[in-house]
Amino acid sequence: MSPIITLLTDFGTADGFVGEMKGVLLNDAPAAVLVDISHELAPHDVQLGRLTLARYWQRFPAGTVHLAVVDPGVGSSRAALAVECEGRFLVGPDNGLLSPALVITRARAVVIPVPAGAAPTFHGRDVFAPAAARLANGDPLDALGEVAASPVILRTPLAQRSAAGELQGEVIAIDRFGNAITSLLAARGSIVSVAGHELPLCRTYADLPRGEAGAVTGSSGFIEIVVREGRAADVLRLARGAPVTLR
Amino acid sequence: MSPIITLLTDFGTADGFVGEMKGVLLNDAPAAVLVDISHELAPHDVQLGRLTLARYWQRFPAGTVHLAVVDPGVGSSRAALAVECEGRFLVGPDNGLLSPALVITRARAVVIPVPAGAAPTFHGRDVFAPAAARLANGDPLDALGEVAASPVILRTPLAQRSAAGELQGEVIAIDRFGNAITSLLAARGSIVSVAGHELPLCRTYADLPRGEAGAVTGSSGFIEIVVREGRAADVLRLARGAPVTLR
Amino acid sequence: MSPIITLLTDFGTADGFVGEMKGVLLNDAPAAVLVDISHELAPHDVQLGRLTLARYWQRFPAGTVHLAVVDPGVGSSRAALAVECEGRFLVGPDNGLLSPALVITRARAVVIPVPAGAAPTFHGRDVFAPAAARLANGDPLDALGEVAASPVILRTPLAQRSAAGELQGEVIAIDRFGNAITSLLAARGSIVSVAGHELPLCRTYADLPRGEAGAVTGSSGFIEIVVREGRAADVLRLARGAPVTLR
Repeated sequence: MSPIITLLTDFGTADGFVGEMKGVLLNDAPAAVLVDISHELAPHDVQLGRLTLARYWQRFPAGTVHLAVVDPGVGSSRAALAVECEGRFLVGPDNGLLSPALVITRARAVVIPVPAGAAPTFHGRDVFAPAAARLANGDPLDALGEVAASPVILRTPLAQRSAAGELQGEVIAIDRFGNAITSLLAARGSIVSVAGHELPLCRTYADLPRGEAGAVTGSSGFIEIVVREGRAADVLRLARGAPVTLR
Repeated sequence: MSPIITLLTDFGTADGFVGEMKGVLLNDAPAAVLVDISHELAPHDVQLGRLTLARYWQRFPAGTVHLAVVDPGVGSSRAALAVECEGRFLVGPDNGLLSPALVITRARAVVIPVPAGAAPTFHGRDVFAPAAARLANGDPLDALGEVAASPVILRTPLAQRSAAGELQGEVIAIDRFGNAITSLLAARGSIVSVAGHELPLCRTYADLPRGEAGAVTGSSGFIEIVVREGRAADVLRLARGAPVTLR
Repeated sequence: MSPIITLLTDFGTADGFVGEMKGVLLNDAPAAVLVDISHELAPHDVQLGRLTLARYWQRFPAGTVHLAVVDPGVGSSRAALAVECEGRFLVGPDNGLLSPALVITRARAVVIPVPAGAAPTFHGRDVFAPAAARLANGDPLDALGEVAASPVILRTPLAQRSAAGELQGEVIAIDRFGNAITSLLAARGSIVSVAGHELPLCRTYADLPRGEAGAVTGSSGFIEIVVREGRAADVLRLARGAPVTLR
């Protein structure tokens, strides 16, 4: 079976940076199958990258190499990482982006040395892509570098149970449809309070009248604030960090 | 030959929904070749999805599986469909999106049952992707479900011939370049009237002076209102539904 | 090894034009591996397309076919080109887009005839994709057409050395991150002047305080004006053509 390399970046595609990375990948690992996840992450948004990566990395077959680059600290002293976890590999900067794998106890991480001549503004091309290609070619993780002592790990803030029994969390992301993803994992409750609104917890979008707001349990288990065929974040003026309560 | 699965959605890519679908597809059908058509359809825009699908589905080799998801009714009672037509397969919601194949008499459609545990907000991942993978693996259409009695079919409004011999239609889509695609199929005529403008019917964009408006016969046979190296929809203030006449 | 065909266009993806091209490519060259570079080039922006293509075309393995279509003159008398250079192939309109290969002395270019029935508004589908598929299938360049006498070549304006020893150039592109790419190739100097600002030449973005402006040598060797985790083009009001000096 051909090795799979997925790509997640905040590079956009128009400037050719992704093209350069793909050229390096296919030059170094000609048998690899490249799978675009996204190049449209908001620039420098490591938190969004982390949440996006969390969705898909374990759904790919064992052996898949996930290349992820959102890297405001490129060329600085931040390390370059390669990670092996649950049979998959991840490659990217040590800034929390790879947290979805690193939080797992069995994850192993190594620091990829920066080759002489690597452009200090483009490790995606000169550090991460060559490392991903090596893993796709079957090189073992340990061949890529020394064990990483304490990689940066970012976590979604845990929802809190109040004395009154309410579950209190916050908006952690706004998705493409304007849905506000919260830190509340599916739990007992029927009313979600956010920004002064009391919203019913429904099964799916179509349970609401068109244009009406409500909440649903999203496909990753987190409760989302939604407007049927509308943009909840705009209609209810929600942004990341807005407090949300389930009761 | 490796089976091809194409993907058309309104999911964007940044949130990882498409990544999840691709993970499911490659996990279930490891030999499949994934081909992105678009994930940038306007959210919930089934009509645009239908027109986009119409352009490409028959251009792919026989055996191709076209996965298409624009699905405002996800999780409701709307059916999930798999279709076989002209040697290709299509998978998506029963809301008219798959009309380009369903309008063909020889098309056969089955209703895909929703598996227990499928997220009611994400059938793309839990219903459509697994079905597309099965077809890519060679499962016959009939193995996926019972015959669909009367799938939803959407059609482009037919242009009408007036008593004076003019062909009357409307704008059905605005494309990336701001061109206004009309429902007028190439026909005898030399002047297109729209929004109070009388425009010459030309052979191609470059027959117009830069910045000037005109009409051309587009690559799918429909007459388009265009501005050379400009955006006709903005310059002439055109939207879907605007009446257009050819004489 | 499967032949690689890369795709670079200004088509967006939502309207299905790219889908049509991919259908033609896979129908004509079933063994080809398609690699998206971008479909998000600014419409009609041949200069941006040229700079993007310059980044990646030589990074792909020998034998790769690069299909590039930014084509405001489609259907006019401008020629359709196929080029062979440094073991790679390029296919696209004769408007300067393919300059990164054409400037090389060893490049060979032929004029692809327009087949009868080709849509005058969509040579990407009816002229360029079929030609790219033939090259991917192993057809030699000369089988595609007659030698092109004098293809259009666009060049990045050369930076000039002033009497005072300063290097004078201009902004040639604004990238996804709002960085302003200049025509100044890495050279001796420590201060970049642009739009009334005197900026330090740094090694990488992270050498600047967050929100501060500076200059770095980009990954293609050109000096860039940047703001750490901000958009230099917006903050400093820079556009293409803005004069830049290095001293």
